Amino acid sequence: MRIAELSRASGVAPATIKYYVREGLLPSGVRTHRNQAEYSDAHVSRLRLIRALVDIGGVSIEAAKELLAALDSGSLSARDALGHVQYALGGRRSQVGEEQREAAAEDVAALLDRRGWRIDDDSPARDTLIDVCAALRLLGHGDVVAAMDDYAGASEAIAATDIALVRNEPVLERMTETAIVGTILGDTLLAALRRLAQEHLSSTLLSADDAADRASGEV
Amino acid sequence: MRIAELSRASGVAPATIKYYVREGLLPSGVRTHRNQAEYSDAHVSRLRLIRALVDIGGVSIEAAKELLAALDSGSLSARDALGHVQYALGGRRSQVGEEQREAAAEDVAALLDRRGWRIDDDSPARDTLIDVCAALRLLGHGDVVAAMDDYAGASEAIAATDIALVRNEPVLERMTETAIVGTILGDTLLAALRRLAQEHLSSTLLSADDAADRASGEV
Repeated sequence: MRIAELSRASGVAPATIKYYVREGLLPSGVRTHRNQAEYSDAHVSRLRLIRALVDIGGVSIEAAKELLAALDSGSLSARDALGHVQYALGGRRSQVGEEQREAAAEDVAALLDRRGWRIDDDSPARDTLIDVCAALRLLGHGDVVAAMDDYAGASEAIAATDIALVRNEPVLERMTETAIVGTILGDTLLAALRRLAQEHLSSTLLSADDAADRASGEV
Repeated sequence: MRIAELSRASGVAPATIKYYVREGLLPSGVRTHRNQAEYSDAHVSRLRLIRALVDIGGVSIEAAKELLAALDSGSLSARDALGHVQYALGGRRSQVGEEQREAAAEDVAALLDRRGWRIDDDSPARDTLIDVCAALRLLGHGDVVAAMDDYAGASEAIAATDIALVRNEPVLERMTETAIVGTILGDTLLAALRRLAQEHLSSTLLSADDAADRASGEV
């Protein structure tokens, strides 16, 4: 198909398609004339994957490029693919003082120890977790840091489902893709499920509180 | 304190502080001279909160402004505050066909039904979840959609911890702040915990797979 048809099939504008080709996220089409190239269904699939990572996963073009290169290399084990997602995405960093960061690093080390999680020294997820804990402490929310054991238990259940999905894939390339898609779109899916569960639980628990407060004249 | 001292105490540049005041995220200081204003510890705390939401939570200035206005109104119940976080953040949207979206809407309605979650018709989290499911189906990952019940169970455990943290706060303003901070920084915290749990589990489960594959000559 020509670029106009690829654009219709994928919902991505021709200028954006050309940009992805230039940036190396999408393979070039097969040149048929001086200004014309032929694209295949594989290009449609790849465009859908790029849009899902960027639009839904909120991944930068740079990180998407790195993830797709890992996928295309075809030599990643599923375990390495999961690791690659982690390292390509890096983590959100904040500027906190050295003192807060040290206390937070101890919080995180103690948590990993309690759970028996063995984690590489240069894990970006560990750095992100330390930064979040430092920010929470700085904001006076040590209570959220103290609740991390509960959150870690739920996260282990989630990760067990993640790994089961990856292990179920019959071929290596699909395992790698599942690791990438499941982790990145999964973050958005899990954040949405958390909001829905909050809405469900708060409509029962917190409404009861509000009613009790009104009855006692406290609010 | 003067703006230079506020900048040192918060780690935020004076130009950025002035920008936050102009945008209405930070109250003005008390004017002492024509070009001079006096700031308080409350300004330091507010700046820390803004930076945490933006740097760690990845929240836009526009959404941060809306959340802080909700916090300052002082009239939100904790339940409304949780809802407000949800609505102010909106959701990530992707362009998927009508057909995929309808199938995904049915997936989500069936899930909510199975779990007995009662959710408002205009919930942005529900729209986000539908979009993610539509994208997953389009990418050929119906297996991830089918695993949503497992993810929903873990999300309910997470939300129960969220609500307990909010209910523990003694005063209404702190409840609202906990709802905002816990939800937004919590998303980043939970994504990091998920990566760490993946690393822990994959080092045992997937390594065993790789070894078995090598032994059988499949990889």
